[in-house]
Amino acid sequence: MAKPPIFIDNLQYANYSPALFDEMAAAGLSAVHVTICYHENFRQTVENIITWNRHIAAHPHRLMFGRTAADVHAAHSSGRTAIFYGLQNCSPIEDDIGLIEILHQLGVRFMQLSYNNQSLLATGCYEAEDPGLTRFGRQAIREMNRVGLVVDMSHSSERSSFEAIECSSRPITITHANPSWWHPARRNKSHELIEALTDAGGMIGFSLYPHHLKKGSGCLLADFAEMVAVAAERYGVHALGIGSDLCQDQPDSVVEWMRNGRWSIERDFGEGSAAQPGFPPQPNWFEGIKDFPNIAVGLAEVGFSADEIADIMGLNWLRFYEQNFGATAQGETTG
Amino acid sequence: MAKPPIFIDNLQYANYSPALFDEMAAAGLSAVHVTICYHENFRQTVENIITWNRHIAAHPHRLMFGRTAADVHAAHSSGRTAIFYGLQNCSPIEDDIGLIEILHQLGVRFMQLSYNNQSLLATGCYEAEDPGLTRFGRQAIREMNRVGLVVDMSHSSERSSFEAIECSSRPITITHANPSWWHPARRNKSHELIEALTDAGGMIGFSLYPHHLKKGSGCLLADFAEMVAVAAERYGVHALGIGSDLCQDQPDSVVEWMRNGRWSIERDFGEGSAAQPGFPPQPNWFEGIKDFPNIAVGLAEVGFSADEIADIMGLNWLRFYEQNFGATAQGETTG
Repeated sequence: MAKPPIFIDNLQYANYSPALFDEMAAAGLSAVHVTICYHENFRQTVENIITWNRHIAAHPHRLMFGRTAADVHAAHSSGRTAIFYGLQNCSPIEDDIGLIEILHQLGVRFMQLSYNNQSLLATGCYEAEDPGLTRFGRQAIREMNRVGLVVDMSHSSERSSFEAIECSSRPITITHANPSWWHPARRNKSHELIEALTDAGGMIGFSLYPHHLKKGSGCLLADFAEMVAVAAERYGVHALGIGSDLCQDQPDSVVEWMRNGRWSIERDFGEGSAAQPGFPPQPNWFEGIKDFPNIAVGLAEVGFSADEIADIMGLNWLRFYEQNFGATAQGETTG
Repeated sequence: MAKPPIFIDNLQYANYSPALFDEMAAAGLSAVHVTICYHENFRQTVENIITWNRHIAAHPHRLMFGRTAADVHAAHSSGRTAIFYGLQNCSPIEDDIGLIEILHQLGVRFMQLSYNNQSLLATGCYEAEDPGLTRFGRQAIREMNRVGLVVDMSHSSERSSFEAIECSSRPITITHANPSWWHPARRNKSHELIEALTDAGGMIGFSLYPHHLKKGSGCLLADFAEMVAVAAERYGVHALGIGSDLCQDQPDSVVEWMRNGRWSIERDFGEGSAAQPGFPPQPNWFEGIKDFPNIAVGLAEVGFSADEIADIMGLNWLRFYEQNFGATAQGETTG
């Protein structure tokens, strides 16, 4: 019997529980990049890391720490899921560039430079203006490059993203978004940006969040798979992966926190609206973690080969992990 | 014998000591707006407030809390100095709009929206680009207006400052800067900006920091006073005050902290240079707090009347305090 493939979901923020860890195993997920924070400061982020460390310690037959690509192989061999930590905002580094190395030492492997709003590093996709990277942002990217903390521009704005690609000496990512030529949502990305990202060795993870999908909750698996096929022609199969943005079992208070944090007195509905303020329903072919293998079925139906499907479903992210989670020769750390 | 005038220095960051509190009394300063933080977060700012609260408690014959214009009158009557707290950055509110009211309740009366760099609210004058106010910035100004925390744009960039004037329903300030038509330093302000500020009821405090002065440390009192005379013609006497930016007795490590905070690995020299990294020497007619009355002498020599001198030296700030430190009718607070 052939060894099962290596599946990686490179962005989730579910309301995790033993039932969902069982789903990860059933779905064959060898690695999941989980979000550790949206607006939290350093101390609160450490608390969230402790919560995750305890999940992993409490479920040794299901989970293991994800720090390197080798951890994904180990998880795959033992039928477990390697959990990689990531930050959807730079709020955990506060105004302190020294916290970049500290967070890497605590296991963090991805950090967004902004989340919807202007940050100290870069602009978010909901701001009216986009001045690009700040003075602190340029220094932060160099430090992230040095220690091996990957830049993620999923919630950042266009010019800031172009400048991050240009400024970074290592490939960067958009872990969870779709092309705006397929569905012109504010969070989706232009052809030119995805092209610049992937030309520089970066990767995009396709999102299954309904606001990022053509036809929203009514998007068909075939629609999604056809989008991936066009993207493969335009950007090459090796630049593509999945970052589902799945918020399984989360209450609507969580999406309100994501959108409003502590910065807003007025209520911001983000991609939703006053009429639809909560999480939108998932498409019926991707209701949760258990459905991750369905994506492979859809990709096969639009003509991808078995090797190409294996790449998109996990091996591309695995190669990206191999190359980008370690320190540079000049940047060796104690972590 | 005539009652002594009310002098107000609306921006200092000295290394305070009993000797300097004696100088305040000798100089006849009835109020000083002291800087409480440059890059500190909320908790660290509270610690700095505690330090100042203890200074005031320990020197009851010299100092008193400054919260309202009435406190300035009380200080003046009793020969003391009312100490008003201010923030040169928005770092103390972190990403939490609720901290604006909390800081006002703790006695803070001025807050800069940015300090040289991009902040979560507005752009600093050292950034290459200036996109104006952020989404959070617009909400923060409304909240500052509500509780009576005055917006200060001294270290912000031009467009952000214009937008703050426009967005704010109450007058704002530039507590410490000079006109760039007199000395084109990066921190000084354009004619158009000072005009917009003062047309909207705002005030500018003239700075005695050598990098803001024509001829730097060699600036003469007559040069400074002539600049004030031209500014009075252009903007009206009532819009003018003093914010000396005096850093008396501070070690050079302090100016390095101001410029670099925790955000920079490379060393930033700000208005200085590698050849002159420290604090520049003060002009010999304004070496410290004791020399505050010299400004009045200089103003008399260029032809200001006694009433005009009293206005510039303190009464204009006093009127500004009267109108801008209280909550709006809709914004009554417990502070």
